[in-house]
Amino acid sequence: MAAEIVLALDAMGGDHAPAMVVRGANIARVRHPEARFLLFGDKTAIDPLLRRYGKLGSAAEVRHTTEVVGPDDKVSHVLRKGRNSSMRLAIEAVSAGEAHGIVSAGNTGALMALAKLVLKTLPGIHRPAMGSIFPTQKGESVILDLGANLECDAANLVQFAVMGEVFARTVLGVVKPSVGLLNVGSEELKGGETLRQAAALLRDSGLPINFTGFIEGDDIAAGTVDVVATDGFSGNVALKTAEGTARLYTEFLKAAFRRSILARVAYLMARPALRKLRDRLDPRGYNGAMFLGLNGVTVKSHGGTDHKGFATALDMAIDMVGQGVNPKIIEELSKFTLPTVQEPRRAAL
Amino acid sequence: MAAEIVLALDAMGGDHAPAMVVRGANIARVRHPEARFLLFGDKTAIDPLLRRYGKLGSAAEVRHTTEVVGPDDKVSHVLRKGRNSSMRLAIEAVSAGEAHGIVSAGNTGALMALAKLVLKTLPGIHRPAMGSIFPTQKGESVILDLGANLECDAANLVQFAVMGEVFARTVLGVVKPSVGLLNVGSEELKGGETLRQAAALLRDSGLPINFTGFIEGDDIAAGTVDVVATDGFSGNVALKTAEGTARLYTEFLKAAFRRSILARVAYLMARPALRKLRDRLDPRGYNGAMFLGLNGVTVKSHGGTDHKGFATALDMAIDMVGQGVNPKIIEELSKFTLPTVQEPRRAAL
Repeated sequence: MAAEIVLALDAMGGDHAPAMVVRGANIARVRHPEARFLLFGDKTAIDPLLRRYGKLGSAAEVRHTTEVVGPDDKVSHVLRKGRNSSMRLAIEAVSAGEAHGIVSAGNTGALMALAKLVLKTLPGIHRPAMGSIFPTQKGESVILDLGANLECDAANLVQFAVMGEVFARTVLGVVKPSVGLLNVGSEELKGGETLRQAAALLRDSGLPINFTGFIEGDDIAAGTVDVVATDGFSGNVALKTAEGTARLYTEFLKAAFRRSILARVAYLMARPALRKLRDRLDPRGYNGAMFLGLNGVTVKSHGGTDHKGFATALDMAIDMVGQGVNPKIIEELSKFTLPTVQEPRRAAL
Repeated sequence: MAAEIVLALDAMGGDHAPAMVVRGANIARVRHPEARFLLFGDKTAIDPLLRRYGKLGSAAEVRHTTEVVGPDDKVSHVLRKGRNSSMRLAIEAVSAGEAHGIVSAGNTGALMALAKLVLKTLPGIHRPAMGSIFPTQKGESVILDLGANLECDAANLVQFAVMGEVFARTVLGVVKPSVGLLNVGSEELKGGETLRQAAALLRDSGLPINFTGFIEGDDIAAGTVDVVATDGFSGNVALKTAEGTARLYTEFLKAAFRRSILARVAYLMARPALRKLRDRLDPRGYNGAMFLGLNGVTVKSHGGTDHKGFATALDMAIDMVGQGVNPKIIEELSKFTLPTVQEPRRAAL
């Protein structure tokens, strides 16, 4: 049996917490017998749920607290107060060596800020990034940053590329992941100085990275590269636009099948195939944004997700621990010297 | 009969020029009996095409030139040389008062640069923007800028909002268009100073604009607002990501229908409905990026489009002339005083 992996869970974060957290943990337990869970939250709410999934009891332990970080709490407030919030205590379990990673479906900004404060960044990393896996025509790829760093300098982008490459190699199992920098339009309209600098660094740094140059927005879903590195503003816009477009397409498809009796019958016949399509695009199958560059595996689940989505986020955290993503990021970064870093003019957190 | 509208066409721009330009003009002629066309390009190539569409002859006139702007020509080169290129001569027909607007499927960067040089910007406009119509869950909306201005200050964004609002009102016929600024993520992660300034200006400027605040990437396809104002980098990323996602969905849908005999039969039955879906998402139905803020209607057709797509771009130019978009932009902008403008640090053109 694989070595034990312990995850600290913010049992109170997310719209459907703590029920979906406990049920999600039970799904992950079946898939990963090596996993154990420390559940931080209200014992009176969690214990009855645990009893519902009998076998989970032996793989889980509840740490009681009644404080929670609200979805609309200000980051500044969360950093000052709430020392006993389920989110903060879960993160501290990682820094104390009690857990290998932390998963929360709570407030994104608060999670990033607390994780940075408590866990600190990995040696050599200037800014942690938020990344995610997304489906493409060729399989799946990684995109980062998704909003933790709205403005980035060239060195930040290079580090995102390195962290994404390690993630694709270790967690997705891509042998020699290709890496692209997100840019715009035609040659003549190509992006600014920061992107050109980052591209030059990736080309000339001597890093053993398969950097293929600039890509455009449509290359993301095409799967042109395994890793898309970008600043947090563009990454967030791209990810959300893709989500919105997929939803629009689904609506149009439904409307098309309602057009005639024949189309309705066709829909009934095609339903199994269309279910497979839905599963393939199901956001719950891609749930979980990983915070890369922190001294501890940290995964953010979508706040509105259900137990299936939360289990996917747990899968990701377990894989990241099991594959040793963080030690490998440190190793890669130690292979080259980053240029002097100009701090970006402003950042989100 | 409506007043005559004359369009100058760069007959040599685009992958399938001049054939698709002439055939596209013939489609537009049927839809708009008030339209006339000045075709700039190689007479020996265009004349035989014109003869194919007999009635077009009386609505079209060829202005011979053999010079063309290539798809990969550098903007700096195009500005210095090529004074007799079909693209430049077509633009000059507008500045000379011979035509009301210009349509080209050629090099985007060259078209923007030449149009700015020859036509100049409208009074009060600091930077022209590239906009486009896109399909949403509620109908259609306008998004700008799409790449002409990679970095924007708050005043630029305000002007984009005003120009987009006028376009939605006049060309799309929306009575009181809602306007949003593209931003990111949760409250805590919300974008930078420029966006906050632009939002404050739009709220407090006294402009009769229905500004609803910030939107996110998924609001674009949801149709949350009629006008999405954003900087050219984010706008380009959003538009291309949406295109790529729609293509991914189509591929997944095709694969789903190939899964089983039953699904194949269902596909045959649903085909008419799926064709309607395809038409609804057909990029040719949304072809044509308008350059707003120039002293003359300028529309860029996608370079790879066919005659149907080119006809859509002609429709847009004809509507913009007919509805007097440019005079209305001037009128709106004259209603308020823009704050002092800091020039962005760098721009694409």
